[in-house]
Amino acid sequence: MSSGLFKFELQSRDGAARRGTVTTPHGQFQTPAFMPVGTSGAVKAMTAEDLEGCGAEIMLGNTYHLYLRPGEKLIKDLGGLAEFNGWHKPTLTDSGGFQVFSMQDLSTVDDDGAMFKSHHDGSSHHFYPEKVMQIQLDIGADIIMSFDQCVPYPADKALAATGVMRTFDWAKRGLIYFNDATAGREDEVALFGIVQGSVYEELRKISAEQLLDLDFPGYAVGGLAVGESKKEMEETLAYTMQFLPEDRPRYLMGVGYPEDLLMAVSNGIDMFDCVLPTRNARTGMVFTSEGPLVFRNAEVADDSRPLDPECDCRVCRRYSRAYIRHLYNQREITSLVLASYHSTYFFQNLMRRIRDSIVENNFDKFRKEFLAKYRRGEGER
Amino acid sequence: MSSGLFKFELQSRDGAARRGTVTTPHGQFQTPAFMPVGTSGAVKAMTAEDLEGCGAEIMLGNTYHLYLRPGEKLIKDLGGLAEFNGWHKPTLTDSGGFQVFSMQDLSTVDDDGAMFKSHHDGSSHHFYPEKVMQIQLDIGADIIMSFDQCVPYPADKALAATGVMRTFDWAKRGLIYFNDATAGREDEVALFGIVQGSVYEELRKISAEQLLDLDFPGYAVGGLAVGESKKEMEETLAYTMQFLPEDRPRYLMGVGYPEDLLMAVSNGIDMFDCVLPTRNARTGMVFTSEGPLVFRNAEVADDSRPLDPECDCRVCRRYSRAYIRHLYNQREITSLVLASYHSTYFFQNLMRRIRDSIVENNFDKFRKEFLAKYRRGEGER
Repeated sequence: MSSGLFKFELQSRDGAARRGTVTTPHGQFQTPAFMPVGTSGAVKAMTAEDLEGCGAEIMLGNTYHLYLRPGEKLIKDLGGLAEFNGWHKPTLTDSGGFQVFSMQDLSTVDDDGAMFKSHHDGSSHHFYPEKVMQIQLDIGADIIMSFDQCVPYPADKALAATGVMRTFDWAKRGLIYFNDATAGREDEVALFGIVQGSVYEELRKISAEQLLDLDFPGYAVGGLAVGESKKEMEETLAYTMQFLPEDRPRYLMGVGYPEDLLMAVSNGIDMFDCVLPTRNARTGMVFTSEGPLVFRNAEVADDSRPLDPECDCRVCRRYSRAYIRHLYNQREITSLVLASYHSTYFFQNLMRRIRDSIVENNFDKFRKEFLAKYRRGEGER
Repeated sequence: MSSGLFKFELQSRDGAARRGTVTTPHGQFQTPAFMPVGTSGAVKAMTAEDLEGCGAEIMLGNTYHLYLRPGEKLIKDLGGLAEFNGWHKPTLTDSGGFQVFSMQDLSTVDDDGAMFKSHHDGSSHHFYPEKVMQIQLDIGADIIMSFDQCVPYPADKALAATGVMRTFDWAKRGLIYFNDATAGREDEVALFGIVQGSVYEELRKISAEQLLDLDFPGYAVGGLAVGESKKEMEETLAYTMQFLPEDRPRYLMGVGYPEDLLMAVSNGIDMFDCVLPTRNARTGMVFTSEGPLVFRNAEVADDSRPLDPECDCRVCRRYSRAYIRHLYNQREITSLVLASYHSTYFFQNLMRRIRDSIVENNFDKFRKEFLAKYRRGEGER
């Protein structure tokens, strides 16, 4: 199964790293790509113009949040996610599973799906594979995700195995619903599968092989960056990648720090999403070429330099650390706007440089040089 | 006394309404002008790029806030207000008097000035004419204001008279300090006087005539929009204007609603400032050509129209009421950014249209037509 208009083309390889282009009904995006997360439709403290200014080409919306508020029907009535939020470019929605299973106090899961209570008003809701497909199809992103069970870390092997079995069963049920619901308009949306299995190689292999039978046009690696060590993440990812088809985009969900992106690209990952750039910006930390900068600290109180002296984003061309820190300490919204913009630009610029280095067959050198400088100045995690 | 580089030129008149240009060391601004208020250096939820995009040509900073945080010395060290905040265009600071006297529980006033406690940490501070000049000169705006006593409304005549006497005495003291401190660099900053006198014509006349003797390059009308009726405001303003010289800019402080701006322009006012566009945006109300719109309300939940269907700002060209309302109700910062941008643009666009109508000798007709449409849709104050 592969959507007609959805297309993934590989232009270059450098080792396992890949440089490609994904085509969707809302246009193309270049891979490896980092998707800013617009939880409720907007990336926090950013406008669609800001995302464009940063060079983002695809954004992610959270199914869990959008389902609860404003509800998928309203988004559908207003033309779908990319029209509703003024973005007009490619979008992806996650499955909602990660949010539901993170709220362990508010949710229960069984073979059929998950019952959970809204964090807004405590109302009860049921997510199951067909429902999650209906919601995502109504939201109307270009790429949607199978409903999966993401187990916490650490998870014993039995729990992780249950997660894998449910993830497969739910992927099958979702796909049946999806094929039925999109009959005649297959061009409009692509459904990806999600590989689970925690840090157990045996389970990762089973999960990948099961999902390959369903022939999704793209595959995600889920269940990582949930608390395991960087070493476990890398080993699990590297092991899993061998099972994922070369001709489909591969998406590492919820990752991550710059060093994680570089590691994953070196293993052949094409897509990422993470709230890190904007979430950290709102607590007073931005990413720079010399590592994380805690710009709320007193040490930058009179620092006239930009957040990142090597950055050419519009924030770094115009504003000083001292000014942004002052605004942050006065709880001025503008500080969050400026810091979010810079860090989002930093991530997009990193991806541009990664893509360029792959085309130039220079990825390993780029990775090494980037990290040498980044880690010299690194002060925070 | 008149600064060398500071210049006010009148291009057109239409009745008492005037169309002019003010030249400052940071460039020109066209009058009548509305100054967005950057309390702590930034207009809340807006960047300098946003202000430029809205067509603002001069912004105001609050001396009280900037003195407390980050302190005038830091701003001076970093090049002055317009460099510190990345704006690079004309700026004006108020005298701090309005803030100090608004906090009646935290301040005491005598003939020498005002003692007050910081709203941040309760620390004690003393504002007196020479101190307020020093602070403003360090902040480094192009136009600064005499330290004045703004009395509350209602004020009995004795209190209002005391305010007038102090305002004159403080203006004299401030001017002596100012002339001394700026000797040799008179080009760099212009000091305006502020007429007080509450709603008493006799006191307004005395205050204006006293200040005229000091020959300021511009005059403000203070002590209005503090609780009096619209009728009292208009009558007091109209009465006061006859005493203010034709060849100097006249600034109505802290005003106001669109209908107030139109009324004041018809009386010959050239400059305004007010937090209204952005403050109201942050509580869910924007200004539109059909009157105020409470965009947080359920009635716009599925409204696909822009905030103002007649507006050509970048927010109205791209986003729906439904989307901005949804974000507002999710407490998304982006909603405040979008609403603040639109309302700031609305005010700047109103000023542009006022200026054009004066040049075309068409101001009364414009005012009437604007208000007819604005009041048809008016739902909130």
